[in-house]
Amino acid sequence: MPLDREDRLISWLRARADAGGAPLLGDDAALLALAGEHAVTVDQQIAGVHFPRRLAPDLVARRLLRVSLSDLAAVGAAPRYALLALAAPRGFDHRAFFRALVSECRRFALRLAGGDLARASGLRGALTLIGARPPRGRWLRRSAARPGDALWVGGTLGEAAVGCRLVGAGAGPGAAPSALPERLGIAADLRGAARRAVRRHLLPEPQLALGRWLGRARRAAAIDLSDGFARDLHRLCRESGVAADVDAAALPLAPGHAALAHALGTDPQALALGGGEDYVLLFALPPALTPPARFSCHRVGVITASRRLRLRDAGRWRPLPDVGFDHLSPRARSGR
Amino acid sequence: MPLDREDRLISWLRARADAGGAPLLGDDAALLALAGEHAVTVDQQIAGVHFPRRLAPDLVARRLLRVSLSDLAAVGAAPRYALLALAAPRGFDHRAFFRALVSECRRFALRLAGGDLARASGLRGALTLIGARPPRGRWLRRSAARPGDALWVGGTLGEAAVGCRLVGAGAGPGAAPSALPERLGIAADLRGAARRAVRRHLLPEPQLALGRWLGRARRAAAIDLSDGFARDLHRLCRESGVAADVDAAALPLAPGHAALAHALGTDPQALALGGGEDYVLLFALPPALTPPARFSCHRVGVITASRRLRLRDAGRWRPLPDVGFDHLSPRARSGR
Repeated sequence: MPLDREDRLISWLRARADAGGAPLLGDDAALLALAGEHAVTVDQQIAGVHFPRRLAPDLVARRLLRVSLSDLAAVGAAPRYALLALAAPRGFDHRAFFRALVSECRRFALRLAGGDLARASGLRGALTLIGARPPRGRWLRRSAARPGDALWVGGTLGEAAVGCRLVGAGAGPGAAPSALPERLGIAADLRGAARRAVRRHLLPEPQLALGRWLGRARRAAAIDLSDGFARDLHRLCRESGVAADVDAAALPLAPGHAALAHALGTDPQALALGGGEDYVLLFALPPALTPPARFSCHRVGVITASRRLRLRDAGRWRPLPDVGFDHLSPRARSGR
Repeated sequence: MPLDREDRLISWLRARADAGGAPLLGDDAALLALAGEHAVTVDQQIAGVHFPRRLAPDLVARRLLRVSLSDLAAVGAAPRYALLALAAPRGFDHRAFFRALVSECRRFALRLAGGDLARASGLRGALTLIGARPPRGRWLRRSAARPGDALWVGGTLGEAAVGCRLVGAGAGPGAAPSALPERLGIAADLRGAARRAVRRHLLPEPQLALGRWLGRARRAAAIDLSDGFARDLHRLCRESGVAADVDAAALPLAPGHAALAHALGTDPQALALGGGEDYVLLFALPPALTPPARFSCHRVGVITASRRLRLRDAGRWRPLPDVGFDHLSPRARSGR
């Protein structure tokens, strides 16, 4: 008797996901030998909230995985297993989605170990990742920052927010630069930067190697930048019982960031401080330590014993407000 | 500076979920000491698909947890940790939801260890559960059934499907029996059974103790009945490379099941075989073993070396078709 749709898809998927390893799919739960400490995280991506409804299934899969991996990077974990709860509307191309997911899992040394499928009106994926604590590695905690530590970021800020706005305005992955809508007013010499911003938004690069390096440092506190530099810095400081002084001039920006932000009618600094979805690590290190140059990290300030976070901008200190994305705000929606 | 909505909710939640234990919430991932083998499962519940949109937040939380726990029961695991991805519409009462979730976690010896929040148009929860392999316990696999094994179920079949139809027709939890809509034609002497069916649908009882008992048996194969007895038996048999003969007269039915099914215009046996969401265990045991009476298990057939599953009904054998719920079917929706 032929299998019904769901069982047919799962059978197809097992042949791919279980290839070259002990079978993991097929029971009511994944049965895993997890010796020692593990980090577990769950993240969700919802069409119309976290990505545009027209995004291709393979890009949805890759983005979901990379966003979640950034959480493992932030605690210094090495990826091991993934479990997926997927709800998709009629006509969704499950095989394109899973082909990309399984391939991207391989790239990041993950095994797809289980999941749950449903049909629903909008596309939503919730991904659970399990990572191991590497040998000689410590967990990175938000609570480990101390006054006097240097404050670092693992990459540029605000570029993903520019990309998000470009995608919201009709730009898309794989589109030729000339396909950037004319009304956005992107000058020819900024189209390369615009394409990089779109890619940064759709396919962030989780900083797993940086997380592992930090886990071997004498002491490090870290958080991944998902909801905006200012908000996530406030969170890091709250957990550590500290504050921070940040130098606005030191905030790393992608080439063309200011011009692109202006073309989109937004403020470059506001995007860098509160745009969100940068998916690079924000971390505090004892001042004697410097991350290797290969990680392209930028020192942006210092941890203080004050009660208030401050930003030094054009030679003057002002409070750094707790701005950024709030997933429960009534304004929470796509195109943030 | 006051926290924004999301951080305020998480702070409120941490005071409750982390009470009386090492803090688990607060980093980008839950950092867990997992010694030995663990079972990990993910399940989702979506308003309008798995439960009616009007269901109270506390019932959504409790149902989500219990449905997922049934997967841990099916592999013989002891519950340890839960992580939640929750997407909820504007106005959703997060605190009522989390109060119920944390309280239900305590009841089942689980710790809430992490999660992700989003605002979306429809309510959806995806729950990840981690369970440990109990000392002296073995994992229960779908693949362990052997010809000659007795086939058992851990409780009655079809009652939850009756409850699902009653809820779809307007009956609700906590409603007085007289609140069962008149047009359903539920006779006075069946109202107790109808209320039990509604409760069975909304708040299934995961058979964790039975799962642990089976894990200490010499050999046992198990699956939890989520998509219907016939479909899940086909899955168990496929994984084990066996078939089964089932005695229709031995299928356990709740008191009043047939009368309720008729009142709802459905066939009692069809609901028992393919109604789904029974959330009791279906298992195969060597014939010399009998589960203790406290588990109220019923022997319903025998595992065979045939290639076809059969049902003996009114003295005649007929094929047992692979019927039940298909989460990818175009017909997949609420009120199944």
